[in-house]
Amino acid sequence: MSVLKGAVLFGQSGGPTSVINASAAGVFLEALKHDAITDIYGAEHGIVGILNERLFDIRKEDVSELELLKNTPSSALGSVRYKLKNVEEDDTDYKRLLEVFKKYNIRYFFYNGGNDSMDTCNKISKYLQSQNYECRIIGVPKTIDNDLYGTDHCPGYGSAAKYVATTMMEIYLDTHVYNTGIVTVVEVMGRNAGWLTAAASLATLKGYGPDLIYLPEKPFDVKQFMEDVKRVSAEKNGKVIAVISEGVKDKDGKYISEYGAELKRDSFGHAQLGGAASILAGMVQDELHVKVRPIEFSLMQRCAAHLASGTDIEEAFMAGAMAVRYAVQGETDKMVVFKREEGPEYKISYELMDVALAANTEKKVPLEWIKEDNTGLSEEFYAYALPLIQGPANNKQEDSLPRFAKLKKVLATK
Amino acid sequence: MSVLKGAVLFGQSGGPTSVINASAAGVFLEALKHDAITDIYGAEHGIVGILNERLFDIRKEDVSELELLKNTPSSALGSVRYKLKNVEEDDTDYKRLLEVFKKYNIRYFFYNGGNDSMDTCNKISKYLQSQNYECRIIGVPKTIDNDLYGTDHCPGYGSAAKYVATTMMEIYLDTHVYNTGIVTVVEVMGRNAGWLTAAASLATLKGYGPDLIYLPEKPFDVKQFMEDVKRVSAEKNGKVIAVISEGVKDKDGKYISEYGAELKRDSFGHAQLGGAASILAGMVQDELHVKVRPIEFSLMQRCAAHLASGTDIEEAFMAGAMAVRYAVQGETDKMVVFKREEGPEYKISYELMDVALAANTEKKVPLEWIKEDNTGLSEEFYAYALPLIQGPANNKQEDSLPRFAKLKKVLATK
Repeated sequence: MSVLKGAVLFGQSGGPTSVINASAAGVFLEALKHDAITDIYGAEHGIVGILNERLFDIRKEDVSELELLKNTPSSALGSVRYKLKNVEEDDTDYKRLLEVFKKYNIRYFFYNGGNDSMDTCNKISKYLQSQNYECRIIGVPKTIDNDLYGTDHCPGYGSAAKYVATTMMEIYLDTHVYNTGIVTVVEVMGRNAGWLTAAASLATLKGYGPDLIYLPEKPFDVKQFMEDVKRVSAEKNGKVIAVISEGVKDKDGKYISEYGAELKRDSFGHAQLGGAASILAGMVQDELHVKVRPIEFSLMQRCAAHLASGTDIEEAFMAGAMAVRYAVQGETDKMVVFKREEGPEYKISYELMDVALAANTEKKVPLEWIKEDNTGLSEEFYAYALPLIQGPANNKQEDSLPRFAKLKKVLATK
Repeated sequence: MSVLKGAVLFGQSGGPTSVINASAAGVFLEALKHDAITDIYGAEHGIVGILNERLFDIRKEDVSELELLKNTPSSALGSVRYKLKNVEEDDTDYKRLLEVFKKYNIRYFFYNGGNDSMDTCNKISKYLQSQNYECRIIGVPKTIDNDLYGTDHCPGYGSAAKYVATTMMEIYLDTHVYNTGIVTVVEVMGRNAGWLTAAASLATLKGYGPDLIYLPEKPFDVKQFMEDVKRVSAEKNGKVIAVISEGVKDKDGKYISEYGAELKRDSFGHAQLGGAASILAGMVQDELHVKVRPIEFSLMQRCAAHLASGTDIEEAFMAGAMAVRYAVQGETDKMVVFKREEGPEYKISYELMDVALAANTEKKVPLEWIKEDNTGLSEEFYAYALPLIQGPANNKQEDSLPRFAKLKKVLATK
């Protein structure tokens, strides 16, 4: 093992989760333990904060506040959606990054995000290597979408899944109180992978699940959807709950949310979604002349830290801590992955995978786990997902409201 | 005290809350203690269940499941929105009610709901008296809207307020992660009273509150709203959170939600609302050309029992239990009300008020508690509302998901 002395830089990227800051806590609190690590910085708004030289000095923070990051949702350092150009096209950003890395003697870089962020890790590492600047770079996975390749699951998913399953149970009761029918259409996040939408089926295990589930893994057929709703309505006294992923699209690849409005795209070229539930509920009302209610879980599904999974918090923390340990041991160009061990008890180990493999790939729900008649998921899914939502969040409160971490955010100077 | 021997009948009415079943538990578990009370029935879907003679025999239920009602949201017996005609117009329903009351020897009737339900209590009691049928009738208050006259607050409000305040804090963090601006418009329930919308300001106490709050107590001016958003946007880097009540209306009394679609009315003649956030967010996007996100707290604000207020659960339970105690003592034609005692410690006593006074009246947020510039509520509101959200829900779980009460619902026969 070669000792590499220098500073740690950590950044957060992409959509926030309930436990993204648990990984930050893992990185920071682990980094504090290592002699090789001189300074510890957190980039404001990810890559953009590095380019703008806005680095927070984490050694100035109280350790007790860093601990509270475990229960503080939504990127405490600020997040960003910024896509680095290919270095052959334009190396301006890369040169600037190298400049800042050199100035602050950054030798460990940890970037927390989804597949776009792993692509960013990969690009930066390749560039620094081409410039003979030694820096160990490890990606820390994060996404409520759970769509990263090579890991059993992603930090952030378990908590979002717990929100979806719990809220589905509560909504089931609410939509069943009256003696009249209602068709409820619930929209869950997940652009191309249906993992989070599938989590609604965990409520089914307890007897309070949706009647119909539609994941983006299978083409969405509006006519079939209407038939499904009619069938359930006839069986269940007019009471129907359908759960759809925001990303459901028809066989021609057109998003259902596009049926209503022109599609916008974010800076990565992804479609900006939302509104599929409203569109489908409107169609049901027009065609079946019944009462409808579209519900979007909106931001709540990714920021409801009060309902986070204890397992998810612990794993997110460990993902950050293990990234530091592995890097200090000499690893680079990797992403931390979770391997589920065989056996009746749920247990995972923290391993590494080439970060290039994680970049820009997507892991989807196996088609064989989705029931043919759209009524739910298979036992395999339950066995997969249920362990991930276990354990309480144990969040600290003041006046029975959340007590989030308060960071001083002192800008580092050199 | 005259001993009146006979059966208890309890019914649930109107929109559900997180703690409505805590009142049911209070009625049932207290009724079990009294020798005067013979049978205990729960009406399926309120008044309609009485008319249809669908009464559940509560003595057949396990006491442990009745205990679990404290943490089970949304009317476990089924709710209803059914307005009794005036007896002079049409006494068909009243005759049928008397028939069922006589058949089951119902001498205690408890009805759980908002002001419409108190009107129902009043009408039934007057009719039974006119027919010389002795029956003690006490209303148990319930509404997330907190708009019942004569009581310090209503069971259901504290839990909904805690949901709104906690979720506002989480959403605040989520909407502040990026380095770009966004105008978020959050819509909260509350037709004519802004109590629940005002609860968003409790997040302000902790530093994570909305920038702007609009209650239905004051006329809503779209032009002023745009000016307010522009002002905050200029001050706060384009990041604006505005919270509106679903019931905001302009100076001509037109609901903002009506700006988008034709208004429908429910069976009580109330406007069916929803959609004001979408309409206002759309206006902001069109006029200011910024990113917007409308969020509706939808059903979650009234059914998120996992986040219920411990104080609210206890008070809702006691409201039901006290209704039984008072009735056994000889009281009738009353509604249970909460009186807040003077002094630095929060403490309430359970008293009675004429049910006729509660019927069809509405208690609104005092105008002097609403800040002139729409930025929030006064200290008086904080002092009023904060005690109501205290204490954990302590809900029972299985597999880290809620374990709701499972009632057998055995139909009573005579």
